[in-house]
Amino acid sequence: MTLHWTAAGQDGAARAGTLHTAHGEVETPVFMPVGTAGTVKAMTADAVRSTGARMVLGNTYHLMLRPTAERIARLGGLHKFMDWHGPILTDSGGYQVMSLNELRKLDEDGVTFRSHVDGSKHRLTPERSIEIQHLLGADVTMCFDECTPFPATEEVAAASMRLSMRWAARSRAAFQPRAGHGLFGIVQGSVYPALRAESVAALTAIGFEGYAVGGLAVGEGQEAMFACLDVTTPLLPQDRPRYLMGVGTPADIVGAVARGIDMFDCVIPTRSGRTARAYTSRGTLNMRNARHADDGSALDPACDCVTCTRHSRAYLNHLFKAEEMLGPMLLTWHNIHYYQTLTRRLRGAILAGRFAEVAAEMAAEWAPEDTP
Amino acid sequence: MTLHWTAAGQDGAARAGTLHTAHGEVETPVFMPVGTAGTVKAMTADAVRSTGARMVLGNTYHLMLRPTAERIARLGGLHKFMDWHGPILTDSGGYQVMSLNELRKLDEDGVTFRSHVDGSKHRLTPERSIEIQHLLGADVTMCFDECTPFPATEEVAAASMRLSMRWAARSRAAFQPRAGHGLFGIVQGSVYPALRAESVAALTAIGFEGYAVGGLAVGEGQEAMFACLDVTTPLLPQDRPRYLMGVGTPADIVGAVARGIDMFDCVIPTRSGRTARAYTSRGTLNMRNARHADDGSALDPACDCVTCTRHSRAYLNHLFKAEEMLGPMLLTWHNIHYYQTLTRRLRGAILAGRFAEVAAEMAAEWAPEDTP
Repeated sequence: MTLHWTAAGQDGAARAGTLHTAHGEVETPVFMPVGTAGTVKAMTADAVRSTGARMVLGNTYHLMLRPTAERIARLGGLHKFMDWHGPILTDSGGYQVMSLNELRKLDEDGVTFRSHVDGSKHRLTPERSIEIQHLLGADVTMCFDECTPFPATEEVAAASMRLSMRWAARSRAAFQPRAGHGLFGIVQGSVYPALRAESVAALTAIGFEGYAVGGLAVGEGQEAMFACLDVTTPLLPQDRPRYLMGVGTPADIVGAVARGIDMFDCVIPTRSGRTARAYTSRGTLNMRNARHADDGSALDPACDCVTCTRHSRAYLNHLFKAEEMLGPMLLTWHNIHYYQTLTRRLRGAILAGRFAEVAAEMAAEWAPEDTP
Repeated sequence: MTLHWTAAGQDGAARAGTLHTAHGEVETPVFMPVGTAGTVKAMTADAVRSTGARMVLGNTYHLMLRPTAERIARLGGLHKFMDWHGPILTDSGGYQVMSLNELRKLDEDGVTFRSHVDGSKHRLTPERSIEIQHLLGADVTMCFDECTPFPATEEVAAASMRLSMRWAARSRAAFQPRAGHGLFGIVQGSVYPALRAESVAALTAIGFEGYAVGGLAVGEGQEAMFACLDVTTPLLPQDRPRYLMGVGTPADIVGAVARGIDMFDCVIPTRSGRTARAYTSRGTLNMRNARHADDGSALDPACDCVTCTRHSRAYLNHLFKAEEMLGPMLLTWHNIHYYQTLTRRLRGAILAGRFAEVAAEMAAEWAPEDTP
């Protein structure tokens, strides 16, 4: 049986369920920490697991350039390489080629670009992207798509989305089904409801194991993002998992779950962990701030991660001021733990039929320290 | 009862024993990872414990400047601050003032210097160094001494050593005895046997809970270091622990244990861990070397640390090439684990009366890959 999702409960549009994969089951809503280059930055795989995380993301673009997909395949696949034995979702490389690479050249067949590592020339097509994701051993493979720039006129957005839909058909054809593995289509269309609807229709006509909403979290703002979800998720098949790519803040996640999204990934908890920004049940904190220097209390008293149960805000402040690696290590650990606690709490609320109430409670809790 | 050491066995001059401290017992020979600024770099306290390490070192110089000893005391002491609940040895600040600070000014009473952090002016005297170490809550406090430059003429070395002996008496007077805590004297005298003997006589006349051999590992080379130990350790009291400061490579440690040393600290395993140099049972390896890129085998097949049991040499090579923080994290973990395995093996050999044999076995094992 291919990778699939089963419903466990629903509250309004918010869904709780289980994703069944070759590397185990994952409860949804799920937040997937980003393991860009074969490591969730500043975390051991054991530490990632200890946060409750059960699924991580790997980046095709980074891994194809270094250490290369062929090398990872020779070494037994990405799960073994990074000691992550739960499911892995890999992106298609499309987003990174567009956002990280200025020397790209797009044509109907694919994209040619130069490596940011050594300047060497590379080419990604739907077929090659799917091949790479097979080599990595992804549980969830993503269609190769073009990341539509933002802002884009409706004409540009339409042309870009239609190219992605042709690539989606080629991705589907290239994908080799295996038990517990699946291919997700990606809805594009920028902020234009008619284009989003056209994209959903094109993808569902092809048929995928799951559907991602792409092209968001690119600068459009939370309101436009939610508006896009409002017109998109109701069109998606009820029985398939839905993944909002690259999102987001805790408030983004709550709002997206409210609109029927099941899966998330984002660099916010990891990147913020390296830049001293803490996400807590009371809001966000800058751990470099001098007001923490003599504060012996826990970063987040409501949190049971190693950072919050063993160390003080004063210690974190010291580590960041002294530029000690343990600062990013402990704060990344906490931030990922917080995101896992968040999605688990949302799941519990959905199953208890209290989603709106819990979402309001969270928003109120965030207020005192800062806004998330 | 003050901090003390009890013998468990002896083989030639090599000793096995137990150090009894306010924060528990430590089997000797012991290697203490260096926790310079309140963290063993790139390691959580749990990870340090998992290597078998039972005692760590903290640096007075770094901690007095940031976050300050008074702040650490207000926050409950260094043990709580860094979540290390085993014994801690703090150095006196003397070595770092001399080696890291070019704007120092030495007089009979102490040293004035400027902070490398913010340029502010500071002063260390024997009394202030001991006070700082009390504020930190050190189990083992070190006398404040002058680090004699190397090379030094016999005249310069004699004057420097005699100043350190006057400071040792002042350190003893300033030290406030507490159960399970102790003050160690530091033997100086550069490479001159007569000066080393004079220093030992001066210190034993004062009386300390332990004796350190200082002023070595400063560029004199292993042969000169061992020659110095040959003339120094036989003069030290049999019933007190002996600590060789800042040493060293695995071969240095084996040679020093053979000459009656019980305690060691060194930045080699941690610093090497950050610069891709691995210490293994087969010798040292540079993990950036391209020959590891496709090597799916464990870094050290004889090692049961998380790095060696979960990951490949290829993965470590990738992490260092991609400049991922997990590279230094995993390699520091392994290196400290290796040093713990080394001292545990030496202890077992001493208790079994097989020290010379095991030392020779180790030297033979190191040969194949590189020299340690």
